[in-house]
This record gives sequence, structure tokens and C-alpha cells, in this order.
Amino acid sequence: MTTALKSNPNAPRPGTTAAHGGKVSQMKAMIYLGPGQIKLQDRPKPDITSPGDAIVRVTQTTICGTDLHILKGDVPTAAPGRILGHEGVGVVDSVGAGVTAFKPGDHVLISCVSACGTCEFCRKQMYSHCTTGGWILGNTIDGCQAEYVRTPHADMSLYHIPEGSNEEALVMLSDILPTGFECGVLNGKVQPGCSVAIVGSGPIGLAALLAAQFYSPASIIMIDLDDNRLAFARKFGATDTINSTDGKAAETLMKLTGGAGVDTAIEAVGVPATFELCEKLVAAGGTIANIGVHGKPVSLHLETLWDRNIAITTRLVDTVTIPRLLKTVAGKKIDPALLITHRFTLAEGEKAYETFGNAAKTMALKVIITT
Amino acid sequence: MTTALKSNPNAPRPGTTAAHGGKVSQMKAMIYLGPGQIKLQDRPKPDITSPGDAIVRVTQTTICGTDLHILKGDVPTAAPGRILGHEGVGVVDSVGAGVTAFKPGDHVLISCVSACGTCEFCRKQMYSHCTTGGWILGNTIDGCQAEYVRTPHADMSLYHIPEGSNEEALVMLSDILPTGFECGVLNGKVQPGCSVAIVGSGPIGLAALLAAQFYSPASIIMIDLDDNRLAFARKFGATDTINSTDGKAAETLMKLTGGAGVDTAIEAVGVPATFELCEKLVAAGGTIANIGVHGKPVSLHLETLWDRNIAITTRLVDTVTIPRLLKTVAGKKIDPALLITHRFTLAEGEKAYETFGNAAKTMALKVIITT
Amino acid sequence: MTTALKSNPNAPRPGTTAAHGGKVSQMKAMIYLGPGQIKLQDRPKPDITSPGDAIVRVTQTTICGTDLHILKGDVPTAAPGRILGHEGVGVVDSVGAGVTAFKPGDHVLISCVSACGTCEFCRKQMYSHCTTGGWILGNTIDGCQAEYVRTPHADMSLYHIPEGSNEEALVMLSDILPTGFECGVLNGKVQPGCSVAIVGSGPIGLAALLAAQFYSPASIIMIDLDDNRLAFARKFGATDTINSTDGKAAETLMKLTGGAGVDTAIEAVGVPATFELCEKLVAAGGTIANIGVHGKPVSLHLETLWDRNIAITTRLVDTVTIPRLLKTVAGKKIDPALLITHRFTLAEGEKAYETFGNAAKTMALKVIITT
Amino acid sequence: MTTALKSNPNAPRPGTTAAHGGKVSQMKAMIYLGPGQIKLQDRPKPDITSPGDAIVRVTQTTICGTDLHILKGDVPTAAPGRILGHEGVGVVDSVGAGVTAFKPGDHVLISCVSACGTCEFCRKQMYSHCTTGGWILGNTIDGCQAEYVRTPHADMSLYHIPEGSNEEALVMLSDILPTGFECGVLNGKVQPGCSVAIVGSGPIGLAALLAAQFYSPASIIMIDLDDNRLAFARKFGATDTINSTDGKAAETLMKLTGGAGVDTAIEAVGVPATFELCEKLVAAGGTIANIGVHGKPVSLHLETLWDRNIAITTRLVDTVTIPRLLKTVAGKKIDPALLITHRFTLAEGEKAYETFGNAAKTMALKVIITT
Repeated sequence: MTTALKSNPNAPRPGTTAAHGGKVSQMKAMIYLGPGQIKLQDRPKPDITSPGDAIVRVTQTTICGTDLHILKGDVPTAAPGRILGHEGVGVVDSVGAGVTAFKPGDHVLISCVSACGTCEFCRKQMYSHCTTGGWILGNTIDGCQAEYVRTPHADMSLYHIPEGSNEEALVMLSDILPTGFECGVLNGKVQPGCSVAIVGSGPIGLAALLAAQFYSPASIIMIDLDDNRLAFARKFGATDTINSTDGKAAETLMKLTGGAGVDTAIEAVGVPATFELCEKLVAAGGTIANIGVHGKPVSLHLETLWDRNIAITTRLVDTVTIPRLLKTVAGKKIDPALLITHRFTLAEGEKAYETFGNAAKTMALKVIITT
Repeated sequence: MTTALKSNPNAPRPGTTAAHGGKVSQMKAMIYLGPGQIKLQDRPKPDITSPGDAIVRVTQTTICGTDLHILKGDVPTAAPGRILGHEGVGVVDSVGAGVTAFKPGDHVLISCVSACGTCEFCRKQMYSHCTTGGWILGNTIDGCQAEYVRTPHADMSLYHIPEGSNEEALVMLSDILPTGFECGVLNGKVQPGCSVAIVGSGPIGLAALLAAQFYSPASIIMIDLDDNRLAFARKFGATDTINSTDGKAAETLMKLTGGAGVDTAIEAVGVPATFELCEKLVAAGGTIANIGVHGKPVSLHLETLWDRNIAITTRLVDTVTIPRLLKTVAGKKIDPALLITHRFTLAEGEKAYETFGNAAKTMALKVIITT
Repeated sequence: MTTALKSNPNAPRPGTTAAHGGKVSQMKAMIYLGPGQIKLQDRPKPDITSPGDAIVRVTQTTICGTDLHILKGDVPTAAPGRILGHEGVGVVDSVGAGVTAFKPGDHVLISCVSACGTCEFCRKQMYSHCTTGGWILGNTIDGCQAEYVRTPHADMSLYHIPEGSNEEALVMLSDILPTGFECGVLNGKVQPGCSVAIVGSGPIGLAALLAAQFYSPASIIMIDLDDNRLAFARKFGATDTINSTDGKAAETLMKLTGGAGVDTAIEAVGVPATFELCEKLVAAGGTIANIGVHGKPVSLHLETLWDRNIAITTRLVDTVTIPRLLKTVAGKKIDPALLITHRFTLAEGEKAYETFGNAAKTMALKVIITT
Repeated sequence: MTTALKSNPNAPRPGTTAAHGGKVSQMKAMIYLGPGQIKLQDRPKPDITSPGDAIVRVTQTTICGTDLHILKGDVPTAAPGRILGHEGVGVVDSVGAGVTAFKPGDHVLISCVSACGTCEFCRKQMYSHCTTGGWILGNTIDGCQAEYVRTPHADMSLYHIPEGSNEEALVMLSDILPTGFECGVLNGKVQPGCSVAIVGSGPIGLAALLAAQFYSPASIIMIDLDDNRLAFARKFGATDTINSTDGKAAETLMKLTGGAGVDTAIEAVGVPATFELCEKLVAAGGTIANIGVHGKPVSLHLETLWDRNIAITTRLVDTVTIPRLLKTVAGKKIDPALLITHRFTLAEGEKAYETFGNAAKTMALKVIITT
């Protein structure tokens, strides 16, 4: 095995008793077994298969809205039998011969996106479109909701966790905070003194709300159908909230903005109605930054927008901002732990899915699963 | 009259014999008389009505696709009785008391967009959305297809023509070249070595083609239904052309680009089919820059585009690049005269409209009307 | 008088009794009488001399470090006899025929920079280099430390004050906050998670400190010789302070930054030693943003910096960010009043200069003079 | 040896007869032997020492001004015994276990800068400051003026050469063209219609001149002491040239620019006089982009520049633009072969140094050494 050179002398070996107790040739993992079926099962501990791989002992992971999409059977690339999960923190167990930045024992944050660093897209900082990576964890290869995970392109896809960090909070930096920051705030060009509307006050909309405050916009208006979520929004820093149940969100927002609309409209739901609402909210010269995962076309009203000097952006998170986000967390400019509402062990993994899947009832934002 | 102080002692006065011959209290002008009706008629010479106004004796003007839209009755803001035209060059005849940058006798280029310079939008360089200006000439106020035109906000909306210029060529800087440059090339982020597709090889698409070459893209692929226009495109610098009559333009372009698509797709037609074609042409990480004037919504296929990291931009030309374009013309980096195919006198104005309106037959790009 | 049309019927007229009491053909003003001499004297109330002018009744003004430079005789453009001052708020008294955005009675903020809006530099948002404006108030023409001031190019150089504002606090938006924001923070490219050092913890350094926090940098290190000023810095949000009296500021900062230096070093003093300190503080890839007014050349150590991928910027404030700053104040993202330490009446103007000029003793930052 | 898996079955092995003839355990190389001494000597063929390495059989290389600096003894990091050279094209001979993008037999361009792709600097596209790379070839490790070279971080530091390329011309993309483009043109923000001055019409200044034309500036003024070099400049596209022997270059340029100065001043020499000349040439709002390698401090005249809104940039080339430059060469937007004036074999290496080192006499720009 190519990793022999660099494996941790104190780390568990296949077929041996692991340092942290128990036989580790087998491990527990949350397995997608087909539409509607997710189970905690035993699986072989993963091995390094490529020189750029690392094996990470996962300490904490979480569930993403995308995991629920897979569970509904909506993500054909994720086949039954797949270990789910693309977020988490852990400790490096072993590394391949080509890994230079990490060694066994290192505490690491796992990016939801794997990046080779050298392909045309990675060189443009578009890790999401890496020709041999992108979003593969818990999708086309086994993921993080397990005791161990194999992470390809480890040098580019893991991040050192500064000593003394709240590691649980950093799980939010695997996907949801970079998504809100990159797809919503950076693409949306949020600037000091500007006005922002975020349509959708679920976990991802709230992550965008937290990240937007890096730039001191004068107003952030959150729009949702659920008063509980809007209460979170106000707690997290929204200057105004609009419950759009009455179908008059656009009119209400226009009143709030003196008829101008907002400089930045962030779509954080993923259905035509919310995107088309953003088309009504955006000011001349403004930006609609799409975060939502869409399954259908939307109507783009170019007959009113062609002369409005707007921009519309789409983006699959690249996680290129993880290093910067780590610094903002260290500098206490953002508190990612605000997003964590529930905690489970891996043994309670199915219950965690149930809780997260019924967010309207449980008021769950993000759940932490400790492995 | 407030302009008395600054009026040209050699310039014609209302009711007097003009320096260039003839009674100028009356003038000839192309008048929109209702759907389908455009006539050369007599009109009173315009007067200064606001301190920021200038009266310009138009020497050369042209017809824009937008004038044809008005003529069809599609532009409700342009009422019957309106003098059409928003492009041209001329000589300043008189200026209002607030005008500081121009004096009678100055040779000037007229921007299609009037800008106060001080409103919220002008301060953001979005002259097109000036709260007391924007595209008003030949729309909500009388325009340039006449012997004289009143230009509001003259300090910001006229440009000095350098001595020795080919003034006819500079008529292309009133609207069509800034439109191609700003809405297509700048919004489309054309860069050295990149790939560009322009859908629509009419005058505006060809103007974008000329302006795109400022940035040395590696390839510019022009797409149109008309082989004559594609022949112009090749002459003007297109590296490839695709006749899209067979409905396979997207496939053909994908072959040309090795399956990647183009970094910049410029829409220069204004109908759903051409915009939706751009959605198929754009590479991951690329930009669709809309120039076309749209009358209907288009289908935005977010179900395939949400994770493609693209940007879509719309823009009504701001003409903020006119100063820079004047320098590129002076430096011979672009030849705007390439766009001029026909020439008429103002007396032949109706024939000019006929020729321009039947471009498929006449192969007209831009026509010059000398007044 | 050209302003007759628009003068406020309730406003005082030359030679008449003013609404706010007293004969206003004369007014009180702080006059520079030659090196070391500043006096409160009577002067004629100013008249409109150009169609773009406004006369503003000043309600509150302040003193700038630059006024002290003039007082030392270091600014040859400011001749003895000049009314000093280029900052303030007030009420429009009358406007010239070319002014469209303001009318008598409007509450306005006066920019320290006058901008025509139409010259080559104004079109590039470089108002400071306006060919007929720039910093002229209290320099080449009479300024704001008076009961009335004539403001040229009023449409571009005054700003409407939102109703209900703390107008005293907005005096900080005439010069010091835009200077800290534009010359320091924007030129310095401060970004979320980055590290910033500000050399000089006087009023302008502290203004930069306040503005830097718009962008949530992870650390802001203030450096000064005076512990009192560093105490202000900590109160205003500095994460670290260094007293550079021991000559070891660079070593201390390198320890704080793990040997990397800072992403942004802001020079806010204006002498060679502080600029050259910035050269030692800046990280590879970082920026030195100069705010200080320099009287001598500095040594630029290109023998160590040529390969460090740094940028150095200089800038005379353009005040283009005043509209945005007004929004951040309205949105409570910054509290400009923090900078105000002392208050005087115009009658106490000489004492105000004394207090501001002895800041080391008086611990003055900005003084407000109510007229 | 870890590379066994991927070595080319047709490639020469250590101690065996090479496919292209001759015993390859030994090779010829240009060795720096101490100040003033450069010799062609035998050396062992390099071996892979790290999983990210590749061994490249060099086919063509060149000499850089920096090699002459080493030869003078001015570069302490380059110890006697070093094989010089950091530019070239060749064919991959073998690759380490961690290399994924290249295989034996691939035709490659060698970047002068080695980049790991994963360190803090590489993630910011600052490959020049890679913590385990940067400019090391022919400096701290053996370089390219040899039959074979070991290239660390091969995945990020080699580039595939498109089939059918003029490989000799691509040697110009190892260093000189990216340097002119990145340090001069991109840092200098050259834009359509702008004005550019380049001080120094040697190889690097001429490379900047070629790259500047990507952006269609209205004027490019070259300044040098040598009329021969200025003749090259005119041939390569300069719009004006100034021989600065008379000490009046600044005055002459001011006349050419109507007293404004240039938007971009590029320093391409590396001595105080030329940098200080740039300080006089730059327009308000402009940029001085330093390319030169400096050995001494320069006087930065902040007493005149503090309020001129300028930027000064420094940069060691990152070669991040090589992919884009390859596309511009393929699209015939630039002809790098223009820079090649002389050709030698490796056996003539010492003569090549002599020719390049006496450029004033030989009129050499870049020399090609075929190995």
C-alpha cells in the first residue's frame, strides 16, 4: 500500500484494534438504499486508492438539503448503496504518497467539493467544476456520514483546523456557509450601504444572511412563508422580514425601498415562484444571485428586464472561500454555531434525518452528528 | 432668453436668415405620424427651454432598429408627431445659461442617452437610467432626424469631436458602437484568449463583433440565418460563422469548441429563440450578455444552469464609453465606417427608412442621412 | 441677480434683516491672515457668481488637519485673507439658475471637493481632479468656517441630508470619513477575514479604522506613538495596538501576524518614517494605501519589494462614496459621532483652533463649530 | 523508484542507451561555476525525488537577463555548480507517482515558476510565492539549460503544448511573455483607448509591448537610450518612441500627451533613474507597473504624488496566464517568435551566453538553444 510511508503509527490499521477502540476494518455509515430509504449499516473502512487520497476519521458531520434530494430519488448520480454526506470535520488517519499538506493526526475540515487544483476549472478557482472532482462525496463516491471517509485530492480539499477551534461550528464551513457567501453574497456583490433581499429563510438563506453582514449592507430583508424561520432571521440580523403568504411580498418590499427595489436579491429556495419574485425585487443596476437548486425552467421576464442593467448569477459552491471564512471565524466576525439547532450521535443517524427532514415541525436548521 | 449671453453671433436666429442659408425658424424633420407612417415635414426650429440645453445643428444622422420599432407602433412612449432619431453629429448653435463645456460653433457628437450627471444613477455611470434623462431623444422629446435638435443636459450628453475626424464615422458612436461595446463586450467580460459567440449578425451584432476585437479573443463565432450577414461578419473579423437555419447551431458550436461552449455568448436579436440558444452555447463559468430588445419572456433553464456558474446580464446602453471609443477611433483601433452601407440626404429621408427597413434585400447595415 | 427665480422667499436678502436675526450682508468668518494668524472677522455675505453655485447657510463646520497646514503657511494656494474650512452641513439659502437638484431650505452636507461632473476626471469618478473644482473650498476660494459659503457646482457637491439625521455627525462625511474610506479602506482593498495595519491613530487613522470595519477584517492593528490615541483606537474597534516609541513596531507586528505581515497597511501620518514602516509591514500580495499628506520624498525599497507583488496607492479624497456613507449611517453601520470630542460656537472659533491644534494635550479628535 | 509505474517504456533508463541515442546517465548542461564563469559540462541525468516531479527531456531553452545576474554573482541563492535556466519546452521522460496530468511522451512547456497549487499563495494565484516552489529552477535547484531537467510540482508547472505548435516560439511563454503580460500589462490595467509608456525597450519591455496590444491602447510610447532597440519597438507596434539620451524624455512625453501623462507607465529596466522617470510620466489616476529587478531603493516623490490618485505595483511573474497566452498564440493574436533573434545548439551554449550578454552589439533579444 502506497500510504505505508506516511501512515500514522498510532492510527488503527485494517484488521487491527483501533486506537479509539473497536475493530475498524468495519465501520458504521448512513447508507442510501433507494428512494425514501436511509439506514445505518456496517461497511468496510475505506482504503486509499490514489496517491492524492486521505482517509479521514470523521468526528462530526451533518445533513444537507441535498441529502434529502438524494433520499427522494431526485439525484440520479447517487446510486443506492451510497454512503451519504459531504460535510464534516475529523482527524487524518492516513494519506497517499502524493499528499504533501497533511499527515496523520491533523485535524481537518472536509470541503463538500473535491478539487485537483490543476485542471482548467480549478485554475480559475471553479473547484465545483473540477474535471476529476467537484461534488462527488456522498454522491458519486462514498461520503462523510460514516466513521471514516476517503477524500480524493486531499491537498486541495481538506483544510487545517486552527488549534482551539470549536470544531462543531466549523462543520458549517464544509458547505452551507461557503454556499451562502460565494453563491449569494459574493456573486450578489453585497457592498457597504446597499440593500439586500433574501428569498427563503431556511438554513441556506440564513447562512447567506450571516455572510452578507460581512459587508455592512444598510438593509437585509428576509422573505419566507414561515414565521418561525423569519423569527430566526430577525435574530440573525435581518433588518426587515416579510411573510409572503399573502402573495404581496413584492409590493411590500417596494414600499420598504421607496419603490427602488434592492441592489441584491438572493434566491435561496429553488422553485420558479421564488426566482420570479426576485425578478420583481431587483433594482435597476442590481443583481439576482441564485443559490437554489432548480428542477424546472423559470420565466425570465426580459420584456421588462432587458433595459434594467441587471445581472443574474448561478453557481455551484466552489468552497474557494474556506480559508477566508476560517479567518473570519477566528476573528469572531461570524458565529457559524448559530445555525446548529440539534445534535445526534451516528447511532441516532436515522432520527437525525427525520428531524432535519421535518424542519417545519422541528424548527431544525442544521443538525450535528457526532460519530 | 437666457441663452442670449452665449449664442453664436454668427449663428442663425429665430425668424432671421440663417448663416447656412434659408429661414431657420422652420426646419425639415422626419416625423412619426402613427403606426407605419413616417414623413418629412416642416417643423419650428427648437428653442432652449432649460439652462442645461443646447441646440445643435445636425449635420449627419442615422436610423436605428429602435426607430423601426417606433414605426411599428411598438414603443408607446413615442407619440405620433414625434421627430425621430437619437444619433448624430452636428455643430452647436446655441447653449443655455448652465452649459459650461460647449459653445456655439463646437463640433459635437450627440449621445443617444441624455444624462444629468448628478442623480443617483448617473453617479453610478448608469446614464441610461438618469431620472431626468436616459433615452428620451426621438422618444419622449423630439430627436435628431431634423435640421436642428434640442439636447437637454448638454454638458453630459454631447462630446467634442476632435479636429480632423471623419464625422460621418462618428455617428456610429452615438448608439450602436457603445451598445455593442457596453452591453455586449464589457458586460460579456471578453478577454484576451477567450471564446465568443454572437447570435445575430445584424448591425448591432456586427458592432459587438468590432468592439470585441479590442480584447483579442481567440475566437469569435457569429451565428445568423442570413448568409449575406455572415459574409459581413467574416469580413469584419469573425473567426467562424454558423448559419443556424438547420436548427443545429448549438451542436455545430459545441464541435467547434471541443464540447466546452463559449466564454461569452452575446444575444443581439431580441427573441426567445436566440436567447435560449445562448443558454445552450455558454460554457461553465461563462457569461450571456443580452443586447436584444425583448418583447416577451424567455425560458431560463435553471434546471441545467443553476450549477454552471454563469452570469446573465442586461443593459440599456449608458454611452459612458464614448470618451474611450473616441480615443480608439483616433488611435485607429476600430473603423466605425465599416458599418455604413448607404447614404442619403434628409430630403430622401423616407427612402432611407425604406432601405434600412428592408435590410434583407438591400443589405443595409447603417445608413447615413446628411441634413 | 440670476438667482432671483429660485431664492427662498423666507431667506435673508442682502442688506435686509435676516430670518435668523441680524443684518446678513455682513457675516462672521474665520480668516487666515498669514502664517500663524487666524481670526474671526466680519466679511460680506457671499453672492452667487455662476449658474451652478449655491449659497449655503452653514449650521455646523469643523477644522481639518489641512487647515493647520494652511495656518503654518505650508499651502501656497491658500492666500492670506482666505476664509478657511471645507467641511460642514447647512441649509441652502439660494441657488443659481443652473442648479436643479437643490432649492432654498434644503438641508445639505457640503463635500470638501467640488465637482463639475462633466470633465474627464469627474466622468472617471475622480472628483478630486475636477478641472474646475477639486479641493477649492477654504483653499483657492472662501470656505465653510463662516455663516455662509458659496459652493460652486452645487448639484454635484452638495448632498441632501435625510430627515431626522444627526446633522452634527454628518459633518464627518464632508471629508474625514470619505478620506478614511476611499484613500484607506477601498484603495487598501480591505476584505472579510484580512489583516489591516493603520499607522497613525489620529483623527484620519481612526476614521479609516471605523470605515475598515465595514468589511469585517479579522484583525486591525493600530500603530502610534501616543497611548491616548491608541486607547481611542481600542475603543473604536482595533484588535491590537502597538506603541511604536521603541522603534520596534515592525518586529512586534510580524510576531502578531506569524511573520506574514498584513494584507493592508494604511499610512495615516504623512512623513517618511511612517510610510517606510508600512513598507516593512505589508505582506506579499498586499497593499500600502497612503492617506497622509507628504512634504518630502520617501525611500521606496524596491530592492526588497520588486518581487513582493504589492500595490501602493495614493489618493486625494474624491468623496464619491458620500451617498453610500449616508446609507451606512442611516443603517447604523457606522457611528461618525464617535470622532467628535469638542464643541464650540463660531464666536469661539479661535479657541477651537487652539484646542484642535494642541490635540496631544487636549485629546481632541474632531471639534464641531456651530455657527 | 516510485515512478516505475508510469515511466515511458520507450524512454531511456538510467544507465541504458537512450531512445534518442547515446548513454543518458550522463548529460550536457550549462553550469554556473562562480562569478563570470559559465561552462558546458557533463552531469548525471536527474532522477525523480518526489512524487510530484517529472523529468523532462529539454528540446529548446533560452537565456534570461536573470541568468546574467547570476553570472555576475548577484543572486546569492544560486550557488556555484548550479545548472542554469528556467525556460524551455521539451518532452516528458518520466513522472512521479503523484503526477496525474502528464505522462511520458507529452510535449510540454516548462514554467519558470514551480507551483504546488495548494499553499496559501498558490490558492491566491500567486505561484511566484509558492511556499515550496516559486522561482527555483536554475536558482536553488538545477535548471533547464541541459538535456534533462527535474521539474517539481509538475502538474501545476508544466503545460501541454497543442499539437502543431511552433514549439520554439512557445519558449517565450516560459517567462518573458507572462512577465510582460502579468507584471506590466495586467498590473498596469491597460485598456482599450488608453495611453501607455514603456521605459526600457529590451526583451522584457518589448514583450510588454506585444502583450499590451491585446487591449488596443490608443498609444504605446517606448523609451530607451538605444536607437536599435527603439527600431525594434516601432516594428513591434509602438506608436511613438523616445530616445532618452538627452534627459528630456519626460518633457517630450508630456508634449505627446498634451500635458496629461500616460495612463500606464511600465518600468522595464530596474534602476532608480527609470523608475523615477515613470513617476514623472504617469497621469493622475494612472498606474506605474514595475517589471524591473531592482538592487537599490528609489526615491518615491510622495510630495507630488500623494494627491495624484496613482497606483504602483510590483510583481514577480506568477505565470498564471500561461493557459490564456497559449490560446492567444493559437488564435494568432500575438507572435512570440518576433522576440527570437539568434539560435544555437547546446554545444554552442557558451557562445549563446556571449551573444546574449553583448546585446548592445549583437542586437540580440532572445536566443534559442536547441539541446
